[in-house]
Amino acid sequence: MENVCKIDVLLNLFLCLISDRLFDCISPYLLPAKNGEEPTMQFLLEVVDILTNYVKKTFDRSTKVLDFHHPHQLLEGMEGFNLELSDQPESLEQILVDCRDTLKYGVRTGHPRFFNQLSSGLDIIGLAGEWLTSTANTNMFTYEIAPVFVLMEQLTLKKMREMIGWPGGEGDGLFSPGGAISNMYSVMIARYKYFPEVKTKGMSAAPRLVLFTSEHSHYSIKKAGAALGFGTENVILLSTDERYLKKKKKKPVNLGYVPLFVNATGGSTVYGAFDPINEIADICEKYNLWLHVDGAWGGGLLMSRKHRHKLNGIERANSVTWNPHKMMGVPLQCSAILVREKGILAGCNSMCAGYLFQPDKQYDVTYDTGDKAIQCGRHVDIFKFWLMWKAKGTIGFEQHIDKCLDLSQYLYNKIKNREGYVMVFDGPQHTNVCFWYIPPSLRGMPDGPERQEKLHRVAPKIKAMMMESGTTMVGYQPQGNKVNFFRMVVSNPAATQSDIDFLIDEIERLGHDL
Amino acid sequence: MENVCKIDVLLNLFLCLISDRLFDCISPYLLPAKNGEEPTMQFLLEVVDILTNYVKKTFDRSTKVLDFHHPHQLLEGMEGFNLELSDQPESLEQILVDCRDTLKYGVRTGHPRFFNQLSSGLDIIGLAGEWLTSTANTNMFTYEIAPVFVLMEQLTLKKMREMIGWPGGEGDGLFSPGGAISNMYSVMIARYKYFPEVKTKGMSAAPRLVLFTSEHSHYSIKKAGAALGFGTENVILLSTDERYLKKKKKKPVNLGYVPLFVNATGGSTVYGAFDPINEIADICEKYNLWLHVDGAWGGGLLMSRKHRHKLNGIERANSVTWNPHKMMGVPLQCSAILVREKGILAGCNSMCAGYLFQPDKQYDVTYDTGDKAIQCGRHVDIFKFWLMWKAKGTIGFEQHIDKCLDLSQYLYNKIKNREGYVMVFDGPQHTNVCFWYIPPSLRGMPDGPERQEKLHRVAPKIKAMMMESGTTMVGYQPQGNKVNFFRMVVSNPAATQSDIDFLIDEIERLGHDL
Repeated sequence: MENVCKIDVLLNLFLCLISDRLFDCISPYLLPAKNGEEPTMQFLLEVVDILTNYVKKTFDRSTKVLDFHHPHQLLEGMEGFNLELSDQPESLEQILVDCRDTLKYGVRTGHPRFFNQLSSGLDIIGLAGEWLTSTANTNMFTYEIAPVFVLMEQLTLKKMREMIGWPGGEGDGLFSPGGAISNMYSVMIARYKYFPEVKTKGMSAAPRLVLFTSEHSHYSIKKAGAALGFGTENVILLSTDERYLKKKKKKPVNLGYVPLFVNATGGSTVYGAFDPINEIADICEKYNLWLHVDGAWGGGLLMSRKHRHKLNGIERANSVTWNPHKMMGVPLQCSAILVREKGILAGCNSMCAGYLFQPDKQYDVTYDTGDKAIQCGRHVDIFKFWLMWKAKGTIGFEQHIDKCLDLSQYLYNKIKNREGYVMVFDGPQHTNVCFWYIPPSLRGMPDGPERQEKLHRVAPKIKAMMMESGTTMVGYQPQGNKVNFFRMVVSNPAATQSDIDFLIDEIERLGHDL
Repeated sequence: MENVCKIDVLLNLFLCLISDRLFDCISPYLLPAKNGEEPTMQFLLEVVDILTNYVKKTFDRSTKVLDFHHPHQLLEGMEGFNLELSDQPESLEQILVDCRDTLKYGVRTGHPRFFNQLSSGLDIIGLAGEWLTSTANTNMFTYEIAPVFVLMEQLTLKKMREMIGWPGGEGDGLFSPGGAISNMYSVMIARYKYFPEVKTKGMSAAPRLVLFTSEHSHYSIKKAGAALGFGTENVILLSTDERYLKKKKKKPVNLGYVPLFVNATGGSTVYGAFDPINEIADICEKYNLWLHVDGAWGGGLLMSRKHRHKLNGIERANSVTWNPHKMMGVPLQCSAILVREKGILAGCNSMCAGYLFQPDKQYDVTYDTGDKAIQCGRHVDIFKFWLMWKAKGTIGFEQHIDKCLDLSQYLYNKIKNREGYVMVFDGPQHTNVCFWYIPPSLRGMPDGPERQEKLHRVAPKIKAMMMESGTTMVGYQPQGNKVNFFRMVVSNPAATQSDIDFLIDEIERLGHDL
């Protein structure tokens, strides 16, 4: 307590000194306050104080993961937290209160007991990287306005391509706004590779093209099919051998359809399953199809000497999606599309707008990479990742990944023979562990539609209670003909065995009387 | 000097106290340092110190806008700044050095003399908002994990639709990763509106569709045409009446082409020109075409009672792109796609993946907006904008916009009759002022190919010298048959008349002897 008081006194003193000093030299421009009278550097440091307190609490297991409220409750205004915008400005004091309230009613995705998404955790180096990125406030459009970030992107992508196993790390790529867009890029460039005239003439210049992916793959392949003009009916969902693509695929050429593209998933969303890339690559080579590996979730395993074999064959892919913001704990967003053939990304997307990319600059304009993207301005997603890589080294990522997979194995071993649990599949490949919790009331019940229907409602009920008590969060979903089951994933570096134990205790506490 | 020392002492004391306190309660999880021995909250505060110093310098006119280096120089490693990644971790001390170097070799886009892009400036409230967003580290996928941000997005989009003039602010929309993607959304939903079967069957289910836009519009419409399967040849670039779309457009129905979509630009990239929306809307209504207004750059003028008339007719649009990260000074990225018809965004893009959007949650799942997007995870772009709107009020944005347009008028008045300047067009509509600087050596020369060729090289030369001296930055480009000219834009709230004067002096200083 004494320490806390001392800190407050010092903080105030410190803030005043800093803000006075700044006030002299930069006066009106820095200041967001009306009339420029307020010492706004003080404001910024007070925000930092709010944020560091939040970070501290995020890692404290005695705090809740969330303080749940329904939309109508937040919209009505919780304890004066008014979301409505107005014509008139608010005071800086009120803005600080707004910042506190925004965090208070949000979800602590870095909490050691937040297991709800593939992206979780709060890496401090990554966070520092994001703060710096925001402060630099530039975009990846040209070397001219983002020289350092453009080079970091190129070097990091090369390193990632080396880990994929493409000779010399050659190829191309960029960071895109998430795995869905990275997957969309893969379909676009595959189409450009085989039917470049579609760029100018549209889909009518190509035969009816078909994309293949597994029924367990991410829905973004289908979204890409819809958006890019293929149509979802021409995205063929191949059935899987329980978890991965079946080994034998029917020769996919008939009825005038032309197969173009196969997506192999390296770590599926629900099961964490890895399609057998080498076997799929054999088929793609035989029929001259583009092979994409969606490693949005599983790509991180390339960093682990122990687990990278699950992606064996990835070096045969034409393109790869890999999201460091998932398994590698990089703050959102950070997703890479990597391409084996150099130049094809530019060929596919460039429009050579002279007013945006001037060829007559004094530096080597091959570093102006903006025209390769479907975006114009592009957020700087590279720096936090680059900084984390610097701080951890490749071995740091490896340790993180190995630890998360060990924890999942711990969970799997703990519940596979435990009373009241049924596993959806045996032997996790990734950190995904999928299971049903069977409340005592259903344990003696014979299997059949009635029990299935009741079981279907168990996970949503437990999840709702979890959210209302705010103690932990874990995902659930149905899959095919399987009723709702829990999908546990671990990507948070803060999670330990005790948090896994806590989750299981909590499921049993909340689900026991259902 | 004395103050500075005191601050250092206090800062250190403060940091130690804070970090000790934190060290006790959160020990290994917070710590990015190897073995968890380092007080990493101190690290975070040291990063803040680097960032606040950078902010301070950004607004200081005695600092350079940039310290230019060629790619090969940075790649070789400037004074120990090594961009290469390694297997082994670096020390936290080295990470701090990396942060400093990253900023040192970057470009100060918030500097009062940075005029290079449509996005410039560094708003402190917006910056605080981004720092908080990074700390919250969530995504816009579901209400479940971003309750406050999802509601803020909905309320802010409604407010924007009200400003567009759609009755009751009704409609739909979302924030997307930049104006190019927002424009792409507009084409996608137009296609879905008229030919919904393209979603499932692909472009072969539709006739040959044509998109119209002006030759001065942003290249992203063409990019969207290529990506979505229309083909760039089916994106018809209409010629303009010097700056805007010609008033009479040929009836665009012949040869089996079906016109689908017209883009009217509200603030073009180079000229800042506003197409006559009402006249275009008449044509669209007559021929039943989708009307999109690309107000990425000009949309902010809706906030100004003085200037919003330039967008008259925008309320007749079916969709609007509006980037608060441009004219409104919101940090990158912040772009909205707004749609008049409710439900069409979801109709176009949703895939109803049960494993991602569970219908059986305890809250109103209509707030789970992820499936409307082509992205899966979506970065939180709303908070900084919402916070700025709270802090400034609508009138704060109005003042900012009016001030920027006044400054451009000041520049225009200053140079329109000045010796050595030729205006590309008279009477700016937006903050774009386009002009040739004619060095004394060319002033007496008769017009002709030789003079044009020499003039074409003037702007790049001046720009290169500007960058090398680091004093200011302004864009240039050719346009149609016009040789390279400067495009001056003002969106930085820190810019004043003295900075405009400086720019002109600098152009003359550097260009005088060319």
